[in-house]
Amino acid sequence: MQKLPRTALTGFAADLGGTKTAVARIERGVVVERLLAPTDCAADPEAQIAAIRSLLGRLGHSNGAPLGVAVAGRVDSAGAWHAVNHGTLPAILGFSLQHALVRDLGAATCLNDAAAAAFAEGLFGAGSQSDSFAYLTVSTGVGGGLVIGNRLLSSANGLAGHVGFVSSRHANGPCGSGRMGTVESIAGGRGIAAAATAGEHEGTDARAVFAAAADGQDWADRIIATSATAVAALIGDLTAILGLDTVAMGGSIGLAPGYIERTRTALEEEPELFRPRLIHAELGHDAPLVGALAAHLRKESP
Amino acid sequence: MQKLPRTALTGFAADLGGTKTAVARIERGVVVERLLAPTDCAADPEAQIAAIRSLLGRLGHSNGAPLGVAVAGRVDSAGAWHAVNHGTLPAILGFSLQHALVRDLGAATCLNDAAAAAFAEGLFGAGSQSDSFAYLTVSTGVGGGLVIGNRLLSSANGLAGHVGFVSSRHANGPCGSGRMGTVESIAGGRGIAAAATAGEHEGTDARAVFAAAADGQDWADRIIATSATAVAALIGDLTAILGLDTVAMGGSIGLAPGYIERTRTALEEEPELFRPRLIHAELGHDAPLVGALAAHLRKESP
Repeated sequence: MQKLPRTALTGFAADLGGTKTAVARIERGVVVERLLAPTDCAADPEAQIAAIRSLLGRLGHSNGAPLGVAVAGRVDSAGAWHAVNHGTLPAILGFSLQHALVRDLGAATCLNDAAAAAFAEGLFGAGSQSDSFAYLTVSTGVGGGLVIGNRLLSSANGLAGHVGFVSSRHANGPCGSGRMGTVESIAGGRGIAAAATAGEHEGTDARAVFAAAADGQDWADRIIATSATAVAALIGDLTAILGLDTVAMGGSIGLAPGYIERTRTALEEEPELFRPRLIHAELGHDAPLVGALAAHLRKESP
Repeated sequence: MQKLPRTALTGFAADLGGTKTAVARIERGVVVERLLAPTDCAADPEAQIAAIRSLLGRLGHSNGAPLGVAVAGRVDSAGAWHAVNHGTLPAILGFSLQHALVRDLGAATCLNDAAAAAFAEGLFGAGSQSDSFAYLTVSTGVGGGLVIGNRLLSSANGLAGHVGFVSSRHANGPCGSGRMGTVESIAGGRGIAAAATAGEHEGTDARAVFAAAADGQDWADRIIATSATAVAALIGDLTAILGLDTVAMGGSIGLAPGYIERTRTALEEEPELFRPRLIHAELGHDAPLVGALAAHLRKESP
């Protein structure tokens, strides 16, 4: 598929996450203005949209201007929004997001936030030279997106790209998705904290585990090594399925000092064919915003 | 992507497997003539092509007629052919298959056999109503292919679709791919035989394990249940990654009496979102032949 030139991206974007909502004005592919507000996770979706609308208004958005909206959770092909991990946005159960956005803002395309970030990284960032690309975000949870032949891999149910819910030989516990032994359950921040608790370091969050590992404490080092090993195995699995040539890692844990090196070390255990290039994501917090607008503009002019 | 009508498929196809080579004449999507010969696995690729050429000649193939060739192993985007599991076709290490076929037969498209079968099932068989479809073949090994939006998912290295090499929480042993603990290593015929040997039923092949299970022997039943459980987990994993709505199962084990029911039972442990429709493949031995010709004709007229 033809690449969309980054300079063609002019419009607005919103990124509704579990803790923060960001909105941006984008000119020729660059975020030129950005506003942040805390997300009220318990609020109903109409209230979330009102919050986005109000923030966008402050950036000069007018009804019908190009708008991409990235959200936590899955968005199906009918534009309905569903929480996948019911711990994050409990009030979201099949709300007609696309419909409501068009009604209140004139035009919009909505998609999963990690998928939007993957699309931006695949077209304009770490994956711009790749034909078979995965973006992984390792943070509180583990998410991602797949860009194959410059196309974001999607599915009618909006589940495609939820790679954190792949099962792992390194995991045993329950996952917010309802599956057992997923990559997210062992590699994400919640999983790291759960492992610390199980190892009698109760109340230690992922940040504290990283600090303890940096301080030379073996128990913490082992937990982080297991997280990186599970992510490396996921990369091998995705490569078997998709023939990936490049994987980009983002997220607070994925970008934490030393984490990508640990993952690369674990990946060295894999046969060469299952070891794509592993690099850091490049677009940071702009990725879901730029990707959401790109998804909107590509849909408008296929 | 537009569907290719099955009636547009007129030409020839070959399917070079680990034990048998099939060639076919196809008219309006139907295999009207077929020839079979044993594969000489130790032969070099030039000898394999000479064998295919001779068989095709008996079906009236003339130089330059439409021809699709399905092979065990991976075929990269330059048309080079590589064994992935070095146990199956040891002599195949990057041979320029596409080039040699065009040289000797005038025109051809070559691709992995399970990918070809997946393409045929996705367009004309079990997946014809699906938008996000996987075909799995559970046989001596475990293979497959993915058809997303009527498009065969492929990659430059030809690895895409090798889903048997995904790691599994139910496996621990080595795999011919070089990875550890893959689905193939526990669910395929070789894995089933290895499990029988490990359980002190040395020299019992997969067929004998199925016979023993049918005869009410618990040890054999457990081995087959583990195989089906690993396949069910793979289906859940592929669904997390691709948002599958339909999975079709083929292969001598996949089509064995009771196997799909066991897999469905294991799949019931998954949350609903991770449980696509699981059905038998419909096209049998015709699938790789029809799919290879379809891949050739789509490439010729995109």
